[in-house]
Amino acid sequence: MKGRNFVGVGLVGFGTIGTGVVKVLERNADVIEQRLGFPLRLVRIADLDTTSDRGVDVSKIRFDDDSAGLIADDSVDIVVELVGGYDFARKLILDSIGAGKHVVTANKALLALYGREIFGAAAKQGVEVAFEASVGGGIPILRSLREGLNANRIESVHGIMNGTTNYVLTEMEKTGEDLDVVVKRAQDLGYAEADPTLDIEGVDAAHKLTLLAAMAFGAELTYDEIPTEGITGLTPVDFEAAEEFGHRIKLLGIAKSHLDAAGGERIEVRVHPTLVPAGSLLAAVDGAMNAVAVTGDAVGPTLFYGAGAGELPTASAVVADLIEIAREVRRGSAGRVAPLSYLPTELTAKPLVPLGEISGRYYLRFTAVDRPGVLAHIASVLGENEIGIESVLQKGRAQSAGSVPVLILTHPAREAAIRSALEIIDALDDVTAPTRLIRIEEGL
Amino acid sequence: MKGRNFVGVGLVGFGTIGTGVVKVLERNADVIEQRLGFPLRLVRIADLDTTSDRGVDVSKIRFDDDSAGLIADDSVDIVVELVGGYDFARKLILDSIGAGKHVVTANKALLALYGREIFGAAAKQGVEVAFEASVGGGIPILRSLREGLNANRIESVHGIMNGTTNYVLTEMEKTGEDLDVVVKRAQDLGYAEADPTLDIEGVDAAHKLTLLAAMAFGAELTYDEIPTEGITGLTPVDFEAAEEFGHRIKLLGIAKSHLDAAGGERIEVRVHPTLVPAGSLLAAVDGAMNAVAVTGDAVGPTLFYGAGAGELPTASAVVADLIEIAREVRRGSAGRVAPLSYLPTELTAKPLVPLGEISGRYYLRFTAVDRPGVLAHIASVLGENEIGIESVLQKGRAQSAGSVPVLILTHPAREAAIRSALEIIDALDDVTAPTRLIRIEEGL
Repeated sequence: MKGRNFVGVGLVGFGTIGTGVVKVLERNADVIEQRLGFPLRLVRIADLDTTSDRGVDVSKIRFDDDSAGLIADDSVDIVVELVGGYDFARKLILDSIGAGKHVVTANKALLALYGREIFGAAAKQGVEVAFEASVGGGIPILRSLREGLNANRIESVHGIMNGTTNYVLTEMEKTGEDLDVVVKRAQDLGYAEADPTLDIEGVDAAHKLTLLAAMAFGAELTYDEIPTEGITGLTPVDFEAAEEFGHRIKLLGIAKSHLDAAGGERIEVRVHPTLVPAGSLLAAVDGAMNAVAVTGDAVGPTLFYGAGAGELPTASAVVADLIEIAREVRRGSAGRVAPLSYLPTELTAKPLVPLGEISGRYYLRFTAVDRPGVLAHIASVLGENEIGIESVLQKGRAQSAGSVPVLILTHPAREAAIRSALEIIDALDDVTAPTRLIRIEEGL
Repeated sequence: MKGRNFVGVGLVGFGTIGTGVVKVLERNADVIEQRLGFPLRLVRIADLDTTSDRGVDVSKIRFDDDSAGLIADDSVDIVVELVGGYDFARKLILDSIGAGKHVVTANKALLALYGREIFGAAAKQGVEVAFEASVGGGIPILRSLREGLNANRIESVHGIMNGTTNYVLTEMEKTGEDLDVVVKRAQDLGYAEADPTLDIEGVDAAHKLTLLAAMAFGAELTYDEIPTEGITGLTPVDFEAAEEFGHRIKLLGIAKSHLDAAGGERIEVRVHPTLVPAGSLLAAVDGAMNAVAVTGDAVGPTLFYGAGAGELPTASAVVADLIEIAREVRRGSAGRVAPLSYLPTELTAKPLVPLGEISGRYYLRFTAVDRPGVLAHIASVLGENEIGIESVLQKGRAQSAGSVPVLILTHPAREAAIRSALEIIDALDDVTAPTRLIRIEEGL
């Protein structure tokens, strides 16, 4: 920024979030300068679509489709990548780093797969890569792990990190409607994509959990290593039963550190619908909101709540990254050593805890012929596998084809034992559909 | 830190929090080094009591009662002030700054009164003063205002910032007991000081709100300018009535920005017991926990939750400050320009909104003779002052001396109108005790 009195920002990708970034930089320019002491100026925008009206005045900003030119522009200190997707975004970020530009991105999918390459290139070049907006939208959760809680050995992370699924779950609970109906409405309202698969199947949450696990535990993993279940297959009866059992259903990304006596560490990571206690803070997170609960060995339980998506909340996080980097650029101290909270040399591929080894209470929805003795049979198989029953609920009489749902809350058991029992139970003649298992998390 | 491979810390005040800091620096030394790339080392402790057993091994650390020697010690880069109180702590911090040492403190009372002097001295000397532990214990709320949400124009802050009072309120609600009984138990359990006045009367929350208002709005004020009401005078009937009205009672510190059409800004600040909607996240914050809800113009509503006090949670915040400063010391870039989030030159004494001008719904507990026509009389005075009644609750028959509590929830009204009405009502013959007013906050 020699010869200039401002730090310059180039924006690539002028969609919803990009428009939010333009709005925030424009309308809060005064506050930002009161915090920085100099202007943070958007100097250039690149997008293939240079004609659509985004409802913001960019007549004084150079705006074309030349992202290579933007990267090469001397007045650009920081490149904001809001293109999304893999190939183009990856090249854009690596080219920016190669040109000595700092990078801000919200692209969790990219970082969850190519993080090692991107952070490695940035470290080599001595530039910053910041990505607060990639997890939890406007919630400063990455910064809190990297800075606010960094005196702690992090013990666990539990996050509601996908607004679309949380909206769908909240609506299903409230209305008693089927998943398809609610997803359709979410699409009509703009809360769900035309193809909602990445959200509904938990993949987006797994992308975010990959980044959280790196920041919390220094664990290097890619998102496809995370056992992931989406919310498909949940039915209105699950929500009714959860309520009667004193719980609510949330799609959680969960990461825990397991230390053994010799100091060895294994990491438990998983994404799935989860029963959480009705009185817990996570249970109170409704609609499209997000929250991440973090437990540290010193601080104990904490929770961070806010909008997980949307134009302005996400822009809030992008601009916070811009402000942080701008300050460093101005000081001449930019070139973050530990973007993932741990030094790159300390990130290691820690062994993962197999799902069969985890232990907890389970909600089981059996679908069985409505005939005397069936419950006794199911209970006896559970007993043989040393799974205790805490509560049983049988909803009405046969709903379809002579079958009824039988809902059981177990005492704590190992998942391997649950799976063995379910294999036997699901093969019984009287059991007419595969049993649905939902894990329960305590102490939230 | 020339010639040294570590950043050195000197601790003054080896009480509860100090012991926590020693524990965290000791047991998490490996994690901290994996984040920093070099050791953060406690090199010296000063306390008048050099003999008590704190349950931690400090045999390898120089420990005496010589705080002046600690400040002068070349191996100390950062001085941690955990003495508390005013005179000695103020001198210690100013002397440390004068000696070119960075300072970490948890002393909200001191900063809320002498912040201007201390931050001014630090800016002049080019050293850092960090104080995350002074608000919200282990919750990284100050860092989140300074960094995570700094792209926003902050609109409001609502904080449960005093664990003692939140514990007392939670217990009173749960048990139906009187304030005195619960405070006594809180003292026995160590949740309340022998003299709990500063907590119970809201002064501690006002200290913290002073710092939050500076960070949120750049508003320079001292805590004694904040209208402050404590929790004394709350009775079991208030908790019962609040529940029936769908609310819970919390002691909140509230700060809001009022922008007029010409861009002028006034600040509304107040500390008092507040009715919050039963379904809100703040209502779910129980016991000694703290939470701060922040609304920004871009991010919308956010909430930060965690332990507001205690040895290890508070130490978590102190050590986070140490890590941040240590990194800067190592880079040679220490000397924060904006410890209060806004540049010192941008902090101004903004006009405060008088309490009479605020508007909202009110809970009113009248104490009146149990006689026909009394309620009508009260209602007519309210009506004459254009205060609408939303709900009325009359609890049982005369409890003492022929008087009964009459509980009213008003429609939104200006506080000046409420006060005018109460002045008339409290002078009625049938009204036997001053009316208790509790403000209601919406939209949390």
